[in-house]
Amino acid sequence: MPSVSKKGIQMPESPIRKLVPYAEDAKKRGINVFHLNIGQPDIKTPQVALDAVKNNTLETLAYARSEGSEEYRVKLAKYYVKNNIPVTANNLVITTGGSEALLFTMGSITDPGDEIIIPEPFYANYNGFSTASGVTVVPVISKIENNFALPKIEEFEKLITPKTKAILICNPGNPTGYLYSEEEIEKLKKIVLKHDLFLIADEVYREFTYDGLTHTSILSLDGLEGNAIVIDSVSKRYSMCGARIGCIVSKNEEFIQTAIKFAQARLSPPTYALIASEAALDTPDSYFTDVKEEYVARRNTLISELEKIDGVTVANPKGAFLLRCSITHKRF
Amino acid sequence: MPSVSKKGIQMPESPIRKLVPYAEDAKKRGINVFHLNIGQPDIKTPQVALDAVKNNTLETLAYARSEGSEEYRVKLAKYYVKNNIPVTANNLVITTGGSEALLFTMGSITDPGDEIIIPEPFYANYNGFSTASGVTVVPVISKIENNFALPKIEEFEKLITPKTKAILICNPGNPTGYLYSEEEIEKLKKIVLKHDLFLIADEVYREFTYDGLTHTSILSLDGLEGNAIVIDSVSKRYSMCGARIGCIVSKNEEFIQTAIKFAQARLSPPTYALIASEAALDTPDSYFTDVKEEYVARRNTLISELEKIDGVTVANPKGAFLLRCSITHKRF
Repeated sequence: MPSVSKKGIQMPESPIRKLVPYAEDAKKRGINVFHLNIGQPDIKTPQVALDAVKNNTLETLAYARSEGSEEYRVKLAKYYVKNNIPVTANNLVITTGGSEALLFTMGSITDPGDEIIIPEPFYANYNGFSTASGVTVVPVISKIENNFALPKIEEFEKLITPKTKAILICNPGNPTGYLYSEEEIEKLKKIVLKHDLFLIADEVYREFTYDGLTHTSILSLDGLEGNAIVIDSVSKRYSMCGARIGCIVSKNEEFIQTAIKFAQARLSPPTYALIASEAALDTPDSYFTDVKEEYVARRNTLISELEKIDGVTVANPKGAFLLRCSITHKRF
Repeated sequence: MPSVSKKGIQMPESPIRKLVPYAEDAKKRGINVFHLNIGQPDIKTPQVALDAVKNNTLETLAYARSEGSEEYRVKLAKYYVKNNIPVTANNLVITTGGSEALLFTMGSITDPGDEIIIPEPFYANYNGFSTASGVTVVPVISKIENNFALPKIEEFEKLITPKTKAILICNPGNPTGYLYSEEEIEKLKKIVLKHDLFLIADEVYREFTYDGLTHTSILSLDGLEGNAIVIDSVSKRYSMCGARIGCIVSKNEEFIQTAIKFAQARLSPPTYALIASEAALDTPDSYFTDVKEEYVARRNTLISELEKIDGVTVANPKGAFLLRCSITHKRF
């Protein structure tokens, strides 16, 4: 029987899967288990998006345009402009989730063995996409003591080699909840310009910032147009993870044209989900006010209860809906 | 400005794009242009699939299970059994289109530089997936003179090297319309067993066979269980190309477990499309009778008209809905 590839063996298994047997076992012992391990919000999807799909009049469920329809990209560009990201429809490639946006980006800018520097802890699936693309992840350590702020630029400098192609950040951060400041983004701008690297920012949690803080997109900075690549998704914004619609945003035309070739090979993003995503752009602002209020209340409850536990240190998330804490292991 | 990767440069552009300017130009000159260049059927999607989406009652559009829900895979396995493909739900990984099924398969069984032998002419996007996966396509030539039948096994033998991982066929063939006979599939079985290779069959046109001929799945053969991988999709079967739901089918457990790791990294196939695809399994048989009748009528019209043109040779397709002809170029 032929065997699978080295790449196939190296592909990481979902780390969440490892926890499932422990949870199942605890449940059997009568323990109430809260599943805090998966980024699936229970928040409702905006009605306007759900209705658009329910009221669709398609008779043939046809391919969408590989890079997304002109109509959707024009409307989406307006959303970005409103969010201080000055782009046009031609700067966008619609993808099947943020996952595919990352895969197309890695395919477009890296060859096997190339390196991408990522602040750690990072979203576990970055490992999966990197392995699938033959990319080596080079972690730079961020620490819970300062809420997982950007590591010192000297730490990045130490890790840059001729094989380094990009720095990848997640802002606000999954799984840290850290929101990078404008000063931190400026520092990243300097280092990627100095070393001629791409700066990739996964900004899928853009709307979810708390305590009066605001999000700084890497695409809002002057002079970074050729280097900046934003990864986006409707999954968390509109609580529609199952849509599988994402987006690559960049003003680097050579890069966008390359990403479109990857999009053409897989033909089309999912058509029903495009209908939902285009309609979701009409979601009223009040939806986000309510959702943010809900997330802040949950965060505050979780933190105040966690801090009551001896040996637990919590990083206070200023964005996203994730929280990371350290637990000092004790003998019970 | 940082530049794209070698892989990005090598990614093929959609060949269809090259034809668009000629068509646009001809239209401007008042010529009526028939677009025969894209596999987007105008056949209606089964009502049962469309209705299932219109009547859905989701309030949160959540992730689906990475490998597809148990319910859908169980129901889909019954469809396969009905089609003489004896598999269970555990032999299936649901993918985002046949495209992703091919990408996961290549990622699971090849490392950069490995080779896959494919009868040529082949579906253009096999090149795209191969480039994205770092795989070298090794073509083996099939000829219009015999309707693009399987090349002689000796021709395959000549091309097998230590880097060969698989033989990939499309049956019925895109773009040839050729339907491999059981004898041809048996020949392929022998050679992959002899050289310990995977045999990948893209069987998305399974239902569309004509002139009383029937389809032989590679999974219907005894003794090929460890080697056979079927690529499938709902796109053509139910005229729902925009769903983006496909499937990997294999009885090789190590391979399936590896493909699931690729599926986990990208989290979920599109949820709305899964609703449509599960409902589509209840499509009445009369739908296929009607569609096949329509395709046969179209094929016959096209062939009889093409054969009236001097210098045109047509391969008579026994399956799928594609037709290939050669045109002897003449001075007008």
